[in-house]
Amino acid sequence: MALGKNKIEKEKDMKVILIGAGNLATHLGKAIFAAGHDVVQVFSRTMQSATALASEVGAQPVSDISDVRSDADLYVVSVKDSAIVELIPVLCKGKETKVFLHTAGSIPMDVFQGMALHYGVLYPMQSFSKQREVDFSQIPCFIEANDEHALQQIGDVAHQVSSRVYHLASEDRKYLHLSAVFACNFVNHCYALSREILEEHGIPFDVMLPLIDETAAKVHELDPKEAQTGPAVRYDENVLRAQGALLKSNPQMKDIYDRMSMSIHKLSVKE
Amino acid sequence: MALGKNKIEKEKDMKVILIGAGNLATHLGKAIFAAGHDVVQVFSRTMQSATALASEVGAQPVSDISDVRSDADLYVVSVKDSAIVELIPVLCKGKETKVFLHTAGSIPMDVFQGMALHYGVLYPMQSFSKQREVDFSQIPCFIEANDEHALQQIGDVAHQVSSRVYHLASEDRKYLHLSAVFACNFVNHCYALSREILEEHGIPFDVMLPLIDETAAKVHELDPKEAQTGPAVRYDENVLRAQGALLKSNPQMKDIYDRMSMSIHKLSVKE
Repeated sequence: MALGKNKIEKEKDMKVILIGAGNLATHLGKAIFAAGHDVVQVFSRTMQSATALASEVGAQPVSDISDVRSDADLYVVSVKDSAIVELIPVLCKGKETKVFLHTAGSIPMDVFQGMALHYGVLYPMQSFSKQREVDFSQIPCFIEANDEHALQQIGDVAHQVSSRVYHLASEDRKYLHLSAVFACNFVNHCYALSREILEEHGIPFDVMLPLIDETAAKVHELDPKEAQTGPAVRYDENVLRAQGALLKSNPQMKDIYDRMSMSIHKLSVKE
Repeated sequence: MALGKNKIEKEKDMKVILIGAGNLATHLGKAIFAAGHDVVQVFSRTMQSATALASEVGAQPVSDISDVRSDADLYVVSVKDSAIVELIPVLCKGKETKVFLHTAGSIPMDVFQGMALHYGVLYPMQSFSKQREVDFSQIPCFIEANDEHALQQIGDVAHQVSSRVYHLASEDRKYLHLSAVFACNFVNHCYALSREILEEHGIPFDVMLPLIDETAAKVHELDPKEAQTGPAVRYDENVLRAQGALLKSNPQMKDIYDRMSMSIHKLSVKE
């Protein structure tokens, strides 16, 4: 019977509880909800944050961890790295047979060890801001799990929310996260410093956008090492000296300028 | 008469000579040629480079500066910053009444002073690689000139090759160039360092591209300061310490990590 066959083929919808209501929790929670799962609760330390996300995924908001129900299939922990270690023992208590995952790049899976039987990680590597919609299906998601049961559930959810799912162990994931800090947070900070310089001279940041876009587009085709241009890779000492002098009133920016230029030059002559 | 009217309205095509055949000279030279100007010669120190570009713009290649014709309307100087000061007196001799421009971000217009009567700058702010085609019409071009005659010719060419033309004096242009080094060269270097980390752990750089694209896309909408995410802006000391420890075998990268993180934190608490 057609209905029965469909029922068998379809992955079972799960009862999911979101622990955390920050940027990542919001984008992932909405993607899990959109995939058809039943998001039953959203926990946040403040009722306001819990309510904001809960209202978007049809869940009950809670701000007391002891109010978190123990009858869900999957608990998705997306809280600050500094909060996770304290939170997990309290959260897992009485729910030891359920599946738990966290979403942090730099925290090992074993943070759940001894607290739960089935656990893992689903790390969506993206820079989330509440103000921006993202296409979650294009976000690379890195998963691991401690056993087959957890891998099945975490893998199912991952494949439902993203078309780019990779298996990666904790030991490598922390280097992936470090690498993402360079490619995203430090990159964004370079944009911010660029904007600071322009502002001081009354030039709108908008003029920089075509250059920013092309710089990002280039590394889709070229190794960034091959794509490099500018005074440091040419080792144009006149320009390097003159630009350093422009920063003399800002020693911290001058310091970044010098060290980045030296590092560019050093990488260009490597091998 | 229609023909006459058209002739009057159309900006006069100029005889143009390209001095230099590097990445910028190639992209700009092709755009000038495509705009309908008569590119009569391409000079480069090596005949091979001169020929490569000359063949694309229907020009004669020359590698001896004394072979550069003196009957062109416009001389476009796109050579390394370190070569420009020596080259200009030799180039301008006997052509003092012609219009000269250079394309360098950090060199003042006055490098032509006393060498020619009509001169200026056309600085196309983009990261040019020979391997990549660019849509020149989208490249912000920053112009200045020492008199009306030079401004007319340089302005005409600029508007023909780009739809984003701005007037900017040398004093501000050097800050614009510095700002571009942060937003392009340093950004690209962050990509390169990210790739180095990934390669050591057997992770393909491709996984980073959605994050790179989103980071660039975000600053079209948000001030980079507001767009910042990650451990440094959260001042998550546990992650900062743990990531620093991952770099202990690479003191130079660790140094960049620490200084960038500190600078991100400092900017986030500014004001």
